[in-house]
Amino acid sequence: MKRTKIKSLLGHAATGEKVTVMGWIRTFRNNQFLSINDGSTLQNVQAVVALEQFDETTLKRLTTGACVSITGELIPSPARGQAVEIKVSELEILGDCDAEKYPLQPKKHSLEFLRDIAHLRSRTNTFGAVMRVRHAMAFAVHQFFNERGFYYIHTPIITGSDAEGAGAMFRVSTLDPSNPPKDESGNINYKEDFFGKETNLTVSGQLEVETYALALSETYTFGPTFRAENSNTTRHLAEFWMIEPEMAFYDIQDNMNLAQEFLQYLVKYALENCKDDLEFLDKRAQDEENTKPKEQRSELGLIDRLKFVTENDFQRLTYTEAIDIFKKTAIPTKKKKFSIPR
Amino acid sequence: MKRTKIKSLLGHAATGEKVTVMGWIRTFRNNQFLSINDGSTLQNVQAVVALEQFDETTLKRLTTGACVSITGELIPSPARGQAVEIKVSELEILGDCDAEKYPLQPKKHSLEFLRDIAHLRSRTNTFGAVMRVRHAMAFAVHQFFNERGFYYIHTPIITGSDAEGAGAMFRVSTLDPSNPPKDESGNINYKEDFFGKETNLTVSGQLEVETYALALSETYTFGPTFRAENSNTTRHLAEFWMIEPEMAFYDIQDNMNLAQEFLQYLVKYALENCKDDLEFLDKRAQDEENTKPKEQRSELGLIDRLKFVTENDFQRLTYTEAIDIFKKTAIPTKKKKFSIPR
Repeated sequence: MKRTKIKSLLGHAATGEKVTVMGWIRTFRNNQFLSINDGSTLQNVQAVVALEQFDETTLKRLTTGACVSITGELIPSPARGQAVEIKVSELEILGDCDAEKYPLQPKKHSLEFLRDIAHLRSRTNTFGAVMRVRHAMAFAVHQFFNERGFYYIHTPIITGSDAEGAGAMFRVSTLDPSNPPKDESGNINYKEDFFGKETNLTVSGQLEVETYALALSETYTFGPTFRAENSNTTRHLAEFWMIEPEMAFYDIQDNMNLAQEFLQYLVKYALENCKDDLEFLDKRAQDEENTKPKEQRSELGLIDRLKFVTENDFQRLTYTEAIDIFKKTAIPTKKKKFSIPR
Repeated sequence: MKRTKIKSLLGHAATGEKVTVMGWIRTFRNNQFLSINDGSTLQNVQAVVALEQFDETTLKRLTTGACVSITGELIPSPARGQAVEIKVSELEILGDCDAEKYPLQPKKHSLEFLRDIAHLRSRTNTFGAVMRVRHAMAFAVHQFFNERGFYYIHTPIITGSDAEGAGAMFRVSTLDPSNPPKDESGNINYKEDFFGKETNLTVSGQLEVETYALALSETYTFGPTFRAENSNTTRHLAEFWMIEPEMAFYDIQDNMNLAQEFLQYLVKYALENCKDDLEFLDKRAQDEENTKPKEQRSELGLIDRLKFVTENDFQRLTYTEAIDIFKKTAIPTKKKKFSIPR
């Protein structure tokens, strides 16, 4: 039978129709209630197994993380928080999961813990939500620019230029690192390297996309970018995806209009298309906030802050006005002195 | 005045409305007819300058490649191939172009020549058409997958794995290449490198996107990929963008259906959205074909071949059936021997 995704199932009425769902078991309670997730949505679907229907060996294999295919009638659910559930008539275990060894449990794991199991963290609510939102944002970026007649340019990753000296770079080479060829002065002879010159990973596609902006008028690039600073902070990434619009014939007002429209478009898209995931992330962030002392907690939750972006016009001001505001509100501390020149 | 893109202008009726167009001069004939392109479309707009309107110094600056802003009435054009033209009332030169030094002329340049002027080739009809089609295809790829509930995963570019040994790899390092740190055995000590291990540019995002397919069900990656084989052929690229869908719960029929739907969707999208550019590329390819001896020319043009893909179902056959067909039709030559085992 053709598989139905849980996302489309949960929007359905409980028609008694026979459906097949495939996914991974989140929990199996009381030898009766299977909670299954297939990643199409944050939500699980509940599947009810009649105890006498399957032998004990099969039931024992229904562990957290096991992959199953179930078929059954879509019926109204008496449980709270779900309109429908599945009354299982057929069950196939597609992949077993050793409960002793599987590191994910039906509880909240710390991001530090998940960092060490990158091959499995995609199955958590947190990473599922983040990746679904990230997908939606990437798509919305392309849709925003496409609707406005911008052209997407794939700028090169391997480059001989260093953009605006934006950062430390990773060297890219096929020379034998143990015994690189040398020139007459004893320096490494990059003429013998793959591209006949020294090359690095790009820190920006700006230079190349500008050559297209000066021909196609409105262009952008959206691709991986690299920084080799050895800085292990939460603000630093060695590899990240960057969006760079480049336009001919734009003045500063056009630039500001584009930036505001772009941000509001993306946030609105997320609010409309990622409701479940944002509510989950909002709650997760709120839980984190609540571990802080009361006076350090942020007043607005994630969704509140996103709505603030879409519902308000962006303030535009001069550098001088910005400094004035900053001087009035910035509280210099011992560690962070207000050091912008007057 | 707000700039109007040539693409939207050419669809307009000649209402006599005042418009402003900005772009680059392709030609200026008889001190009267300016042909301007802004990259929004392959088509140029013709702007008619009344000789007495501007002094000779200004007219002399209207050279191929110069960047201008013109304002004037949108009127019916008596010339063939264009419904409207602009009767110029205001003209501003935004950027001069030295006619002596500018390498692009209003004629067809060879791809070999354009290769050496990568910063300017974006202004040719050929590269404009290619990049507009490439943009449309990239967008259609995302739209296709998004409509079907696939999630886009940005897989890492820098990697410690070599996928399936798909190809030679570029080394990525921040070690001092002239004096890399050594371990006790005299080998390079990659523990001191940026990531604490030997790293390369990815040859495939498959491994990482699979971890997401086994959580989100239907996923894909679309990003830069690298091959360090030193092979300078028209079939080989050191850096290219690759699309890799990875799905859980798919059988071979599902895979084939997806591949066919995907290709037909993209080709249909191109035919519907890139008509001008495809017609231009069709003609360009036809011109190339016509330089070959008659018996070597391909029978179908570009657009014919694209329509063939959308209008026909894909044949599905076994390996054995494919070999049988091949044995019947392949003509072994001295250079290319039919060497597939029977």
